[in-house]
Amino acid sequence: MTATIPGTLTGEMLIAGTPVRGTGKEVRAFDPTAGQTLEPAYRHGDSTHVETACAAAAEAFGAYRATTSEQRAQFLESIAANIEAIKDDLIARTVAESGLPQARITGEVGRTTGQLRLFASVLREGSWNGARIDPALPDRTPLPRPDLRQRFIPLGPVAVFSASNFPLAFSVAGGDTASALAAGCPVVVKAHDAHPGTSELVARAITEAVASAGLPAGTFSLLFGTGQELGIALVTDPRIKAVGFTGSRTGGTALVAAAAARPEPIPVYAEMSSINPVFLLDGALNSRGAELGKAFVGSLTMGSGQFCTNPGLVIAVDGPGLTSFVAAAAEALGKAPATPMLTPSIARSYNSGVESLSEAAELIGRGEAAGSETCGQAALFTTDAASFLASDALQAEVFGSSSLIVRCADADEVRAVADGIEGQLTVTVHADDSDLDAAAKLLPVLELKAGRILFGGWPTGVEVCHAMVHGGPFPATSDSRTTSVGSRAIERYLRPVCYQDVPKSLLPSAIADGNPDDLWRRIDGQLSQD
Amino acid sequence: MTATIPGTLTGEMLIAGTPVRGTGKEVRAFDPTAGQTLEPAYRHGDSTHVETACAAAAEAFGAYRATTSEQRAQFLESIAANIEAIKDDLIARTVAESGLPQARITGEVGRTTGQLRLFASVLREGSWNGARIDPALPDRTPLPRPDLRQRFIPLGPVAVFSASNFPLAFSVAGGDTASALAAGCPVVVKAHDAHPGTSELVARAITEAVASAGLPAGTFSLLFGTGQELGIALVTDPRIKAVGFTGSRTGGTALVAAAAARPEPIPVYAEMSSINPVFLLDGALNSRGAELGKAFVGSLTMGSGQFCTNPGLVIAVDGPGLTSFVAAAAEALGKAPATPMLTPSIARSYNSGVESLSEAAELIGRGEAAGSETCGQAALFTTDAASFLASDALQAEVFGSSSLIVRCADADEVRAVADGIEGQLTVTVHADDSDLDAAAKLLPVLELKAGRILFGGWPTGVEVCHAMVHGGPFPATSDSRTTSVGSRAIERYLRPVCYQDVPKSLLPSAIADGNPDDLWRRIDGQLSQD
Repeated sequence: MTATIPGTLTGEMLIAGTPVRGTGKEVRAFDPTAGQTLEPAYRHGDSTHVETACAAAAEAFGAYRATTSEQRAQFLESIAANIEAIKDDLIARTVAESGLPQARITGEVGRTTGQLRLFASVLREGSWNGARIDPALPDRTPLPRPDLRQRFIPLGPVAVFSASNFPLAFSVAGGDTASALAAGCPVVVKAHDAHPGTSELVARAITEAVASAGLPAGTFSLLFGTGQELGIALVTDPRIKAVGFTGSRTGGTALVAAAAARPEPIPVYAEMSSINPVFLLDGALNSRGAELGKAFVGSLTMGSGQFCTNPGLVIAVDGPGLTSFVAAAAEALGKAPATPMLTPSIARSYNSGVESLSEAAELIGRGEAAGSETCGQAALFTTDAASFLASDALQAEVFGSSSLIVRCADADEVRAVADGIEGQLTVTVHADDSDLDAAAKLLPVLELKAGRILFGGWPTGVEVCHAMVHGGPFPATSDSRTTSVGSRAIERYLRPVCYQDVPKSLLPSAIADGNPDDLWRRIDGQLSQD
Repeated sequence: MTATIPGTLTGEMLIAGTPVRGTGKEVRAFDPTAGQTLEPAYRHGDSTHVETACAAAAEAFGAYRATTSEQRAQFLESIAANIEAIKDDLIARTVAESGLPQARITGEVGRTTGQLRLFASVLREGSWNGARIDPALPDRTPLPRPDLRQRFIPLGPVAVFSASNFPLAFSVAGGDTASALAAGCPVVVKAHDAHPGTSELVARAITEAVASAGLPAGTFSLLFGTGQELGIALVTDPRIKAVGFTGSRTGGTALVAAAAARPEPIPVYAEMSSINPVFLLDGALNSRGAELGKAFVGSLTMGSGQFCTNPGLVIAVDGPGLTSFVAAAAEALGKAPATPMLTPSIARSYNSGVESLSEAAELIGRGEAAGSETCGQAALFTTDAASFLASDALQAEVFGSSSLIVRCADADEVRAVADGIEGQLTVTVHADDSDLDAAAKLLPVLELKAGRILFGGWPTGVEVCHAMVHGGPFPATSDSRTTSVGSRAIERYLRPVCYQDVPKSLLPSAIADGNPDDLWRRIDGQLSQD
């Protein structure tokens, strides 16, 4: 099947609707399962392509943000439909480029189209407008109050950086793009070199939707290039007003620094680094340590451990329960096949991370040996609380199926570890009824450390919904005040504007008299649908 | 009256409830009206005082954020009551320290207590919790959905930098402090050297409220010191998690840079620089140019022009209407008395700003000559659109009663000037019915430039309410996504946390079953009070 797809791929960027061949380094996708490169060749763009894309995005912004919520909702749905129309070819190409199983990629197509449709529903529901009205009080003394109304408007063109590990859901038409387009912001995507064919196919689906909706071509562009060159050029372009990024701590902090150093600093939403601690409380551990150990390995090795929410740290009080957990985990791990990692470079980084851990902690289990350099062999380590707290290396994310078990002397030491960890996307607690007092004491500490707190279950698996937070304190993200998954993600690309005594005929419909958009609005501070 | 107040002032900082004498430079307030220094002497603090205040704030955070909304509402109300209890002494001291008229300071006391009570009402209304619940879907295929709930929690201790120009409403118990305390964040204030006595009196009112509410002493501290030394030490203390600032562009950008360079970057809400353009459209100008010119001078010279929203720029098409405007403005300005500026250093900066403008633009009017070096003499300049657009100097804020009229050839040039201006707190449009088409074309440009758009009236005067935005694109503020005035200001100090399958007994009340706090919550995306 892969053989037929290159024929449909051109190897070009898509800049404001126009296919453009890059001028820089040639890159090809690599199939980590088959161990072979994939046609066609893509070439990196340069600063002239950034210039063209940003100029087109700025040019498009006025008309694009003037569309109604309903128009943008239909546009997002049309992107979803276009992706579904090429689903078979897309899945085949993405599986080949990522080495991820077909079932996973099939699910990711559904998640990606689901995200687009979620934001369509957010647009139709309308609370994103943040509409508020404080009516005039002409008779107030000593001074009358003017008529004051507030709504949100989009920030402007947004740069989106695709992730390696979700070639669809966190990439070209992923959550960052969907939420920025929903907000009314044109989007310039920097594709990830690991899946250029997937990127081209999805970019074409978006470009077709832009054209069929009659939107300005600059509403969307796709560029190829390195983060250090093209990426920095994009983030420092004065027409870009916000950035969405999912990737490494190094890459994310470089973009944050570049954005902060601009003459006009802009927000960067970088989702970077998290080891997703799992706390096993005594009751749970003693009643079902072995069961938890086996389930833990399932979460650890899923997708070759290449999830932002992979459980890379386990904390528990030492004892028979933990011994059962470790034994079951080591046994399950021993049977875990080495699976392809996304790219040879990610596989190399993983191996070097495992090597670093081997020097700092005790190896207590490994997965099946890797048959190829591009596969990742799972690894499990252990250490004590004092060593963990004294070592930055033991807190560093190792992207892949590697995890570290921290053995604590008692509940106080568990609390000290919780206090000592950096910011995280998730923390997980396994607790039985007998653990609820201990859990109640731990919870306030955990709230300050993570964007999401789970009881039971495992952190892999991020529901796309209204209450989700995929975010958290630094270094999990560069901005803990928001989320990159779920409906609240649209807020990242908006800012409030107040309209004082603006003539009725000029007021945007969201804050017009008579509530023509039928919105929930805050009138004198009270929610109302009148 | 001022004679009795020094006796009540100790000249000390208040660190976590304890009076502490500084060790650094000695500073005294200066009465710009009387031209004399005021007792007592205050001494700047150093890094050890920052350490003590931040340690106490971090220590207080857990207990303070665990208070209920109702407890914090009563605490804010108690601060307001304590300020009212010392109102007479406070007003006398603030008038002496600021040189601002008694009526203005009396109004500012009301505004300050009003802000505290507004946030008490925001706490009781409860939407600040951002409560969302996506109930479990255990039967969903292919995978069940867990129970997911979201609420906002406070970021942690907040550093607040007092402003010079609002010794009460943007200072020790001003909007930044009120919104951060409302959010559940302990506050460490760096006082402004221009009004140390006011700062001490207000800090005492807060400290008494902390004690009588039984809150941890570290919930509030007041420090004295320079921005460059003590200020930077405060912003870079790892326990500080956000910053509120009102002041100069130089000061604000220095804090933003220091916060961005921390190992863990934190948000800085700096309200900095705005010249608040006023657009006079043809119909309005031709029908009432003289009337507008006179009213404009009223706004320009109010409070010696020392408002963040002072109208420092006027844009109009040249013609008889503008000529009438200018003539009336120049005449009114000629009768405007020179009034005391906040500090001798602000008066010096103002004079040097006026001198710079004199070199780059044509002087067309001045206020009455200043009888003292500490008074500001109003100034009005004019230039053409091309010169304005070519000059950074003409866009720089001159803090005081100085303004620049930009004469445009036609509506296209007006639009070009609108396009060319930097980010602003406000833009004002004066339009008659005949101007509505022109205003409709201008409005989308203005929305991208400012946090608040006014039709009619003047930008000075910022209503404290729900729909207000006192913010705007850089350099008006460092973060356009929010406001420092009005109820939305609480959002600056919050972040969302998601609770997945957390046992009912451990859930915070805002997201508990049965809605015990009687909140508006988003259930499966729909607002509900059930």
